[in-house]
Amino acid sequence: MYPDSLKNLIESFKFFPGVGEKSAERMAFASLDLEEDQLALFAESLKEVKKKIHPCKICNSLTDEEVCPICSSSLRDETLCVVEDAKIVFLFEKLGAFKGKYHVLSGLISPLEGINPEDIGLEKLVERIEKESFKEIILAFKPSLEGETTALYVKRILEGMQVLVTRLASGVPMGADMEYVDALTLERALFDRKKVE
Amino acid sequence: MYPDSLKNLIESFKFFPGVGEKSAERMAFASLDLEEDQLALFAESLKEVKKKIHPCKICNSLTDEEVCPICSSSLRDETLCVVEDAKIVFLFEKLGAFKGKYHVLSGLISPLEGINPEDIGLEKLVERIEKESFKEIILAFKPSLEGETTALYVKRILEGMQVLVTRLASGVPMGADMEYVDALTLERALFDRKKVE
Repeated sequence: MYPDSLKNLIESFKFFPGVGEKSAERMAFASLDLEEDQLALFAESLKEVKKKIHPCKICNSLTDEEVCPICSSSLRDETLCVVEDAKIVFLFEKLGAFKGKYHVLSGLISPLEGINPEDIGLEKLVERIEKESFKEIILAFKPSLEGETTALYVKRILEGMQVLVTRLASGVPMGADMEYVDALTLERALFDRKKVE
Repeated sequence: MYPDSLKNLIESFKFFPGVGEKSAERMAFASLDLEEDQLALFAESLKEVKKKIHPCKICNSLTDEEVCPICSSSLRDETLCVVEDAKIVFLFEKLGAFKGKYHVLSGLISPLEGINPEDIGLEKLVERIEKESFKEIILAFKPSLEGETTALYVKRILEGMQVLVTRLASGVPMGADMEYVDALTLERALFDRKKVE
Protein backbone atom coordinates (compact mmCIF):
# COMPACT_ATOMS: atom_id res chain seq x y z
CA MET A 1 0.00 0.00 0.00
CA TYR A 2 2.75 2.47 0.98
CA PRO A 3 5.49 3.25 -1.55
CA ASP A 4 8.51 1.06 -0.73
CA SER A 5 10.83 3.74 0.61
CA LEU A 6 8.07 5.00 2.91
CA LYS A 7 7.29 1.43 4.00
CA ASN A 8 10.94 0.79 4.84
CA LEU A 9 11.06 3.92 6.96
CA ILE A 10 7.88 2.96 8.82
CA GLU A 11 9.32 -0.51 9.46
CA SER A 12 12.56 1.05 10.72
CA PHE A 13 10.76 3.20 13.27
CA LYS A 14 8.98 0.06 14.48
CA PHE A 15 12.38 -1.35 15.52
CA PHE A 16 12.14 0.88 18.58
CA PRO A 17 10.52 -0.23 21.83
CA GLY A 18 7.10 1.32 22.35
CA VAL A 19 6.79 2.46 18.73
CA GLY A 20 3.76 0.78 17.15
CA GLU A 21 2.30 1.00 13.66
CA LYS A 22 0.58 4.33 14.24
CA SER A 23 3.53 6.16 15.81
CA ALA A 24 5.86 4.71 13.19
CA GLU A 25 3.60 6.03 10.44
CA ARG A 26 3.37 9.44 12.11
CA MET A 27 7.16 9.68 12.40
CA ALA A 28 7.71 8.48 8.83
CA PHE A 29 5.34 11.13 7.50
CA ALA A 30 7.03 13.71 9.74
CA SER A 31 10.36 12.73 8.15
CA LEU A 32 9.01 13.97 4.83
CA ASP A 33 8.62 17.44 6.36
CA LEU A 34 12.21 17.51 7.63
CA GLU A 35 14.97 19.34 5.75
CA GLU A 36 17.37 17.31 3.58
CA ASP A 37 20.24 18.19 5.92
CA GLN A 38 18.29 17.21 9.03
CA LEU A 39 17.62 13.79 7.49
CA ALA A 40 21.26 13.53 6.46
CA LEU A 41 22.43 14.36 10.00
CA PHE A 42 19.96 11.83 11.39
CA ALA A 43 21.11 9.10 8.99
CA GLU A 44 24.74 9.92 9.73
CA SER A 45 24.27 9.78 13.52
CA LEU A 46 22.49 6.45 13.21
CA LYS A 47 25.42 4.94 11.33
CA GLU A 48 28.01 6.62 13.55
CA VAL A 49 26.55 5.86 16.95
CA LYS A 50 27.18 2.11 17.08
CA LYS A 51 30.66 2.50 15.57
CA LYS A 52 31.81 5.28 17.90
CA ILE A 53 30.01 4.62 21.18
CA HIS A 54 31.42 1.83 23.36
CA PRO A 55 31.82 1.10 27.08
CA CYS A 56 34.49 3.04 28.98
CA LYS A 57 37.52 0.82 29.69
CA ILE A 58 37.29 1.64 33.39
CA CYS A 59 33.62 2.20 34.35
CA ASN A 60 31.66 0.64 31.41
CA SER A 61 29.74 3.87 30.89
CA LEU A 62 29.15 4.86 27.26
CA THR A 63 31.86 6.96 25.63
CA ASP A 64 33.50 7.66 22.28
CA GLU A 65 36.95 7.72 23.89
CA GLU A 66 38.92 4.87 25.45
CA VAL A 67 38.35 6.26 28.94
CA CYS A 68 35.25 8.40 29.59
CA PRO A 69 35.64 12.05 30.68
CA ILE A 70 34.40 11.23 34.18
CA CYS A 71 36.96 8.47 34.79
CA SER A 72 39.75 10.65 33.42
CA SER A 73 38.70 13.70 35.45
CA SER A 74 40.80 14.71 38.45
CA LEU A 75 37.97 16.78 39.91
CA ARG A 76 35.81 13.84 40.95
CA ASP A 77 35.84 12.82 44.62
CA GLU A 78 36.43 9.37 46.10
CA THR A 79 32.82 8.21 46.03
CA LEU A 80 31.83 5.44 43.60
CA CYS A 81 28.24 5.19 42.42
CA VAL A 82 27.45 1.68 41.14
CA VAL A 83 24.57 1.53 38.64
CA GLU A 84 22.87 -1.21 36.62
CA ASP A 85 22.87 0.61 33.28
CA ALA A 86 24.86 3.38 31.55
CA LYS A 87 21.64 5.40 31.13
CA ILE A 88 21.63 5.97 34.89
CA VAL A 89 25.06 7.62 34.73
CA PHE A 90 23.70 10.33 32.43
CA LEU A 91 20.62 10.65 34.64
CA PHE A 92 22.85 11.43 37.64
CA GLU A 93 25.11 13.70 35.58
CA LYS A 94 22.09 15.76 34.52
CA LEU A 95 21.15 16.08 38.16
CA GLY A 96 24.62 17.48 38.76
CA ALA A 97 24.34 16.63 42.45
CA PHE A 98 26.87 13.79 42.44
CA LYS A 99 30.56 14.64 42.26
CA GLY A 100 32.08 11.16 42.48
CA LYS A 101 32.73 8.49 39.86
CA TYR A 102 30.55 5.73 38.44
CA HIS A 103 30.73 2.02 37.74
CA VAL A 104 28.22 0.40 35.40
CA LEU A 105 27.29 -3.25 35.92
CA SER A 106 25.74 -5.25 33.10
CA GLY A 107 22.32 -5.45 34.72
CA LEU A 108 21.17 -6.85 38.04
CA ILE A 109 21.28 -10.34 39.53
CA SER A 110 18.02 -12.08 38.65
CA PRO A 111 17.84 -15.83 39.43
CA LEU A 112 14.41 -15.89 37.77
CA GLU A 113 15.87 -14.74 34.45
CA GLY A 114 18.98 -16.85 35.01
CA ILE A 115 21.22 -13.82 35.52
CA ASN A 116 23.79 -14.84 38.12
CA PRO A 117 26.41 -12.80 40.03
CA GLU A 118 29.13 -13.85 37.55
CA ASP A 119 27.06 -12.44 34.64
CA ILE A 120 27.00 -8.77 35.65
CA GLY A 121 30.73 -8.01 35.80
CA LEU A 122 31.28 -7.86 39.54
CA GLU A 123 34.93 -9.00 39.36
CA LYS A 124 35.81 -5.87 37.42
CA LEU A 125 34.02 -3.79 40.09
CA VAL A 126 35.91 -5.47 42.94
CA GLU A 127 39.25 -5.13 41.14
CA ARG A 128 38.56 -1.45 40.57
CA ILE A 129 37.61 -0.83 44.19
CA GLU A 130 40.77 -2.63 45.30
CA LYS A 131 42.89 -0.52 42.94
CA GLU A 132 41.37 2.95 43.35
CA SER A 133 40.94 4.32 46.86
CA PHE A 134 37.23 4.98 47.27
CA LYS A 135 35.88 6.14 50.61
CA GLU A 136 32.26 5.21 49.85
CA ILE A 137 30.43 2.90 47.45
CA ILE A 138 26.86 4.00 46.71
CA LEU A 139 24.68 1.21 45.30
CA ALA A 140 22.13 3.02 43.10
CA PHE A 141 20.05 0.04 41.95
CA LYS A 142 16.33 0.23 41.36
CA PRO A 143 14.28 -0.70 44.43
CA SER A 144 13.15 -4.12 43.20
CA LEU A 145 13.80 -7.75 44.12
CA GLU A 146 16.71 -7.76 41.65
CA GLY A 147 18.00 -4.46 43.01
CA GLU A 148 17.89 -5.65 46.61
CA THR A 149 19.48 -9.01 45.76
CA THR A 150 22.31 -7.35 43.86
CA ALA A 151 22.85 -4.78 46.63
CA LEU A 152 23.08 -7.49 49.30
CA TYR A 153 25.46 -9.54 47.14
CA VAL A 154 27.75 -6.59 46.39
CA LYS A 155 27.68 -5.58 50.08
CA ARG A 156 28.78 -9.14 50.95
CA ILE A 157 31.68 -9.38 48.49
CA LEU A 158 32.92 -5.96 49.62
CA GLU A 159 33.02 -7.00 53.27
CA GLY A 160 36.52 -6.88 54.69
CA MET A 161 37.48 -3.94 52.46
CA GLN A 162 37.84 -0.69 54.38
CA VAL A 163 35.03 1.02 52.47
CA LEU A 164 31.61 2.35 53.42
CA VAL A 165 28.81 0.75 51.36
CA THR A 166 25.54 2.72 51.13
CA ARG A 167 22.39 2.51 49.03
CA LEU A 168 19.92 5.13 47.80
CA ALA A 169 17.09 5.90 50.19
CA SER A 170 13.75 4.57 49.05
CA GLY A 171 10.42 5.79 50.27
CA VAL A 172 7.51 8.00 49.33
CA PRO A 173 8.41 10.02 46.21
CA MET A 174 8.39 13.81 46.68
CA GLY A 175 5.02 15.32 45.85
CA ALA A 176 3.29 11.95 45.69
CA ASP A 177 -0.30 11.59 46.89
CA MET A 178 -0.13 9.21 49.83
CA GLU A 179 -3.13 7.19 48.65
CA TYR A 180 -1.35 6.36 45.39
CA VAL A 181 1.84 5.09 47.00
CA ASP A 182 2.06 1.28 46.73
CA ALA A 183 2.18 -0.86 49.88
CA LEU A 184 5.80 -1.97 49.45
CA THR A 185 7.02 1.62 49.08
CA LEU A 186 4.99 2.71 52.09
CA GLU A 187 6.34 -0.20 54.14
CA ARG A 188 9.90 0.73 53.20
CA ALA A 189 9.24 4.40 53.97
CA LEU A 190 7.92 3.41 57.39
CA PHE A 191 10.82 1.06 58.04
CA ASP A 192 13.38 3.68 56.98
CA ARG A 193 11.63 6.53 58.86
CA LYS A 194 13.90 9.36 59.98
CA LYS A 195 13.97 11.48 63.12
CA VAL A 196 12.63 14.98 62.46
CA GLU A 197 15.34 17.46 63.45
CA MET B 1 27.60 15.45 28.87
CA TYR B 2 26.70 12.83 26.24
CA PRO B 3 29.39 11.70 23.78
CA ASP B 4 28.96 13.71 20.55
CA SER B 5 27.63 10.96 18.31
CA LEU B 6 25.04 10.04 20.94
CA LYS B 7 24.13 13.72 21.40
CA ASN B 8 23.64 14.13 17.65
CA LEU B 9 21.32 11.14 17.57
CA ILE B 10 19.28 12.45 20.51
CA GLU B 11 19.00 15.84 18.79
CA SER B 12 17.89 14.12 15.58
CA PHE B 13 15.07 12.27 17.30
CA LYS B 14 13.95 15.60 18.75
CA PHE B 15 13.28 16.84 15.18
CA PHE B 16 10.06 14.84 15.33
CA PRO B 17 6.78 16.26 16.61
CA GLY B 18 5.88 14.99 20.05
CA VAL B 19 9.37 13.65 20.73
CA GLY B 20 10.83 15.46 23.73
CA GLU B 21 14.16 15.13 25.51
CA LYS B 22 13.23 11.97 27.42
CA SER B 23 11.77 10.03 24.48
CA ALA B 24 14.67 11.13 22.27
CA GLU B 25 17.14 9.80 24.84
CA ARG B 26 15.21 6.54 25.16
CA MET B 27 15.21 6.04 21.39
CA ALA B 28 18.89 6.98 21.06
CA PHE B 29 19.83 4.42 23.71
CA ALA B 30 17.57 1.88 22.01
CA SER B 31 19.47 2.50 18.77
CA LEU B 32 22.59 1.15 20.47
CA ASP B 33 20.79 -2.17 20.96
CA LEU B 34 19.80 -2.41 17.28
CA GLU B 35 21.75 -4.56 14.82
CA GLU B 36 24.24 -2.85 12.49
CA ASP B 37 22.09 -3.79 9.48
CA GLN B 38 18.91 -2.47 11.10
CA LEU B 39 20.63 0.87 11.67
CA ALA B 40 21.96 0.81 8.10
CA LEU B 41 18.48 0.13 6.69
CA PHE B 42 17.06 2.90 8.87
CA ALA B 43 19.74 5.38 7.76
CA GLU B 44 19.23 4.35 4.14
CA SER B 45 15.44 4.78 4.26
CA LEU B 46 15.85 8.20 5.87
CA LYS B 47 18.06 9.38 3.03
CA GLU B 48 15.95 7.68 0.35
CA VAL B 49 12.50 8.76 1.46
CA LYS B 50 12.70 12.47 0.62
CA LYS B 51 14.45 11.76 -2.69
CA LYS B 52 12.02 9.09 -3.87
CA ILE B 53 8.68 10.11 -2.42
CA HIS B 54 6.85 12.97 -4.14
CA PRO B 55 3.24 13.95 -4.89
CA CYS B 56 1.42 11.99 -7.59
CA LYS B 57 1.12 14.08 -10.78
CA ILE B 58 -2.64 13.53 -10.83
CA CYS B 59 -3.93 13.27 -7.23
CA ASN B 60 -1.04 14.75 -5.12
CA SER B 61 -0.93 11.61 -2.96
CA LEU B 62 2.55 10.37 -2.02
CA THR B 63 4.22 8.00 -4.46
CA ASP B 64 7.62 6.93 -5.77
CA GLU B 65 6.31 6.78 -9.34
CA GLU B 66 5.15 9.64 -11.58
CA VAL B 67 1.53 8.55 -11.25
CA CYS B 68 0.46 6.66 -8.10
CA PRO B 69 -0.89 3.08 -8.34
CA ILE B 70 -4.41 4.24 -7.46
CA CYS B 71 -4.60 6.86 -10.22
CA SER B 72 -3.16 4.41 -12.76
CA SER B 73 -5.49 1.59 -11.67
CA SER B 74 -8.38 0.66 -13.97
CA LEU B 75 -10.21 -1.11 -11.15
CA ARG B 76 -11.18 2.03 -9.27
CA ASP B 77 -14.77 3.29 -9.65
CA GLU B 78 -15.93 6.81 -10.56
CA THR B 79 -16.06 8.19 -7.03
CA LEU B 80 -13.51 10.82 -5.99
CA CYS B 81 -12.60 11.23 -2.33
CA VAL B 82 -11.12 14.67 -1.66
CA VAL B 83 -8.86 14.82 1.41
CA GLU B 84 -6.79 17.51 3.11
CA ASP B 85 -3.59 15.47 3.49
CA ALA B 86 -1.94 12.46 1.82
CA LYS B 87 -1.93 10.62 5.17
CA ILE B 88 -5.71 10.32 4.89
CA VAL B 89 -5.40 8.45 1.59
CA PHE B 90 -3.44 5.67 3.28
CA LEU B 91 -5.89 5.72 6.18
CA PHE B 92 -8.76 5.01 3.77
CA GLU B 93 -6.72 2.45 1.83
CA LYS B 94 -6.07 0.52 5.04
CA LEU B 95 -9.78 0.52 5.68
CA GLY B 96 -10.18 -1.05 2.26
CA ALA B 97 -13.80 0.07 2.20
CA PHE B 98 -13.37 2.75 -0.48
CA LYS B 99 -13.00 1.68 -4.11
CA GLY B 100 -12.82 5.05 -5.83
CA LYS B 101 -9.96 7.46 -6.41
CA TYR B 102 -8.51 10.26 -4.29
CA HIS B 103 -7.52 13.88 -4.62
CA VAL B 104 -5.26 15.48 -2.02
CA LEU B 105 -5.57 19.22 -1.36
CA SER B 106 -2.74 21.11 0.30
CA GLY B 107 -4.59 21.64 3.56
CA LEU B 108 -7.89 23.35 4.34
CA ILE B 109 -9.10 26.91 3.91
CA SER B 110 -8.34 28.80 7.13
CA PRO B 111 -8.84 32.58 7.03
CA LEU B 112 -7.46 32.75 10.57
CA GLU B 113 -4.13 31.26 9.45
CA GLY B 114 -4.28 33.22 6.20
CA ILE B 115 -4.83 30.07 4.11
CA ASN B 116 -7.16 31.11 1.28
CA PRO B 117 -8.97 29.05 -1.38
CA GLU B 118 -6.23 29.75 -3.94
CA ASP B 119 -3.61 28.27 -1.57
CA ILE B 120 -4.90 24.70 -1.37
CA GLY B 121 -4.81 23.70 -5.03
CA LEU B 122 -8.51 23.80 -5.87
CA GLU B 123 -7.95 24.71 -9.57
CA LYS B 124 -6.19 21.39 -10.10
CA LEU B 125 -9.14 19.62 -8.43
CA VAL B 126 -11.69 21.38 -10.64
CA GLU B 127 -9.67 20.71 -13.81
CA ARG B 128 -9.44 17.05 -12.86
CA ILE B 129 -13.17 16.74 -12.18
CA GLU B 130 -13.89 18.42 -15.53
CA LYS B 131 -11.50 16.02 -17.31
CA GLU B 132 -12.32 12.70 -15.62
CA SER B 133 -15.96 11.60 -15.41
CA PHE B 134 -16.69 11.20 -11.70
CA LYS B 135 -20.23 10.36 -10.57
CA GLU B 136 -19.67 11.46 -6.97
CA ILE B 137 -17.25 13.72 -5.08
CA ILE B 138 -16.87 12.80 -1.40
CA LEU B 139 -15.44 15.62 0.73
CA ALA B 140 -13.59 13.82 3.55
CA PHE B 141 -12.38 16.82 5.54
CA LYS B 142 -12.08 16.83 9.31
CA PRO B 143 -15.24 18.10 11.04
CA SER B 144 -13.85 21.50 12.07
CA LEU B 145 -14.45 25.13 11.15
CA GLU B 146 -11.76 24.79 8.44
CA GLY B 147 -13.25 21.52 7.22
CA GLU B 148 -16.76 22.96 6.97
CA THR B 149 -15.52 26.15 5.27
CA THR B 150 -13.54 24.17 2.71
CA ALA B 151 -16.43 21.78 2.08
CA LEU B 152 -18.86 24.67 1.47
CA TYR B 153 -16.39 26.40 -0.82
CA VAL B 154 -15.68 23.26 -2.87
CA LYS B 155 -19.43 22.54 -3.05
CA ARG B 156 -19.94 26.06 -4.44
CA ILE B 157 -17.23 25.93 -7.11
CA LEU B 158 -18.53 22.54 -8.26
CA GLU B 159 -22.07 23.83 -8.71
CA GLY B 160 -23.21 23.58 -12.30
CA MET B 161 -21.15 20.44 -12.92
CA GLN B 162 -23.28 17.30 -13.22
CA VAL B 163 -21.73 15.64 -10.18
CA LEU B 164 -23.05 14.61 -6.76
CA VAL B 165 -21.11 16.23 -3.90
CA THR B 166 -21.28 14.47 -0.51
CA ARG B 167 -19.42 14.72 2.79
CA LEU B 168 -18.58 12.18 5.48
CA ALA B 169 -21.25 11.78 8.15
CA SER B 170 -20.27 13.20 11.48
CA GLY B 171 -21.82 12.28 14.79
CA VAL B 172 -21.28 10.17 17.87
CA PRO B 173 -18.23 7.90 17.35
CA MET B 174 -18.97 4.18 17.52
CA GLY B 175 -18.50 2.80 21.02
CA ALA B 176 -18.23 6.26 22.58
CA ASP B 177 -19.65 6.91 26.03
CA MET B 178 -22.40 9.47 25.50
CA GLU B 179 -21.31 11.56 28.49
CA TYR B 180 -17.87 12.07 26.93
CA VAL B 181 -19.15 13.25 23.54
CA ASP B 182 -18.60 17.00 23.13
CA ALA B 183 -21.56 19.35 22.66
CA LEU B 184 -20.77 20.22 19.03
CA THR B 185 -20.60 16.55 18.02
CA LEU B 186 -23.81 15.78 19.88
CA GLU B 187 -25.55 18.73 18.22
CA ARG B 188 -24.39 17.52 14.79
CA ALA B 189 -25.48 13.96 15.58
CA LEU B 190 -28.91 15.24 16.58
CA PHE B 191 -29.18 17.46 13.51
CA ASP B 192 -28.12 14.63 11.18
CA ARG B 193 -30.30 12.04 12.93
CA LYS B 194 -31.45 9.15 10.73
CA LYS B 195 -34.73 7.21 10.54
CA VAL B 196 -34.41 3.77 12.10
CA GLU B 197 -35.39 1.23 9.43
